[in-house]
Amino acid sequence: MRYELYYWPGIQGRGEYIRLALEDAGADYADVARSERGMAAMMKMMEARTGTPPFAPPFLKAGKLVIGQTANILLYLGSRHGLAPKPEAGRLWVHQLQLTVADLVLEIHDTHHPLGPSLYYEDQRGPAKKRSDEFWKERVPKYLGYFERLLRADGGHYLTGRRLTYADLSLFQIVEGLRYAYPRRMKAFERNIPGLVGLRDRVAARPNIKAYLASDRRIAFNEDGIFRRYKALDG
Amino acid sequence: MRYELYYWPGIQGRGEYIRLALEDAGADYADVARSERGMAAMMKMMEARTGTPPFAPPFLKAGKLVIGQTANILLYLGSRHGLAPKPEAGRLWVHQLQLTVADLVLEIHDTHHPLGPSLYYEDQRGPAKKRSDEFWKERVPKYLGYFERLLRADGGHYLTGRRLTYADLSLFQIVEGLRYAYPRRMKAFERNIPGLVGLRDRVAARPNIKAYLASDRRIAFNEDGIFRRYKALDG
Repeated sequence: MRYELYYWPGIQGRGEYIRLALEDAGADYADVARSERGMAAMMKMMEARTGTPPFAPPFLKAGKLVIGQTANILLYLGSRHGLAPKPEAGRLWVHQLQLTVADLVLEIHDTHHPLGPSLYYEDQRGPAKKRSDEFWKERVPKYLGYFERLLRADGGHYLTGRRLTYADLSLFQIVEGLRYAYPRRMKAFERNIPGLVGLRDRVAARPNIKAYLASDRRIAFNEDGIFRRYKALDG
Repeated sequence: MRYELYYWPGIQGRGEYIRLALEDAGADYADVARSERGMAAMMKMMEARTGTPPFAPPFLKAGKLVIGQTANILLYLGSRHGLAPKPEAGRLWVHQLQLTVADLVLEIHDTHHPLGPSLYYEDQRGPAKKRSDEFWKERVPKYLGYFERLLRADGGHYLTGRRLTYADLSLFQIVEGLRYAYPRRMKAFERNIPGLVGLRDRVAARPNIKAYLASDRRIAFNEDGIFRRYKALDG
């Protein structure tokens, strides 16, 4: 089956967590909105009056299913492509970790959009600076400290042990994104998270991920996405 | 099996979406942190070095399982208590709706905490006013308009048709919470969402929910929770 991924064409955004899973699994997929007339097709599906119209991209067409919400799509893909344990307990645990990553992603977005997603960054520079300071002081240590602790408890290979899951791929993206958006702050912080840095390196070295990152299917980080490099926010 | 729910004892918060599901299902559960020494038990489980320690409450102990993240707990309960369809397509769809509710809940929290969850409201009154204005102008119509549209498409009974799911219970809580926190704004807005108001009434009239709401198991809304009544933010 050829999957169809629908996501905004110019950014990594939340679509990237899906792309990383599809790429690592070697799954066949089309990144629809990046093709001609793809955006029109995406908007049409969101406006559907029947079926399961998603609230927002990303969403995945898998045969007859249309599945929305990043973590939900990964839940679906995980059990089919060996990116999550099959028994219920393991499946729920990896999904729980992914939902915690999703909370972190929302807080990262809020660092440059504290007054809401519908206003420009340029209209909220002051609050964005305050929220970024608070984010690095309180939230990054709490979130990344949590994942670091889990990694150490499980021997430091992947989050749940020796087998990679989609949550590991998402954490790779978190480390990459924080390095891009906050180079100074992240450089200083990385000494606290050797386990996560090791995980990032292990993911980057996986053959399918390595090939993906070197391809033009990987969109570059930019200031329309979730991880934005604004010098004023970097400490 | 007697479930153990762990959540902050003084607020409805995210725990309420779980309570509503357990109550409607007539499930046997203990609200652990509201009992003597319950808070200490909760903190101890969060600091566990083995197993599946949650990042934050709420979490649910179900036999040997410890399940964190609100939507993940509902995913688990839904299939066991008739609060979600059993076939995969329906299960994913209801979960997707719940994750969209979760995004909305986070945005509601941000209306009074735009500069971050670790600062007091009193230290962010100005930004909170701006974020609240933006929330009601852009986000409420988008989110509630989406759910209203789904309700109409499915005949207006419950979100996915004639059978209630946990996502309906959560939408009940959203309507109740917005009425509490923003009485003026919500009163003016309700004319746009007759379907959601009807859904709220249908949920409130369900015998188990009715009994729950009248009991002292239902914590009252207050200004430590997600829905806070701050007059300055109400238009």
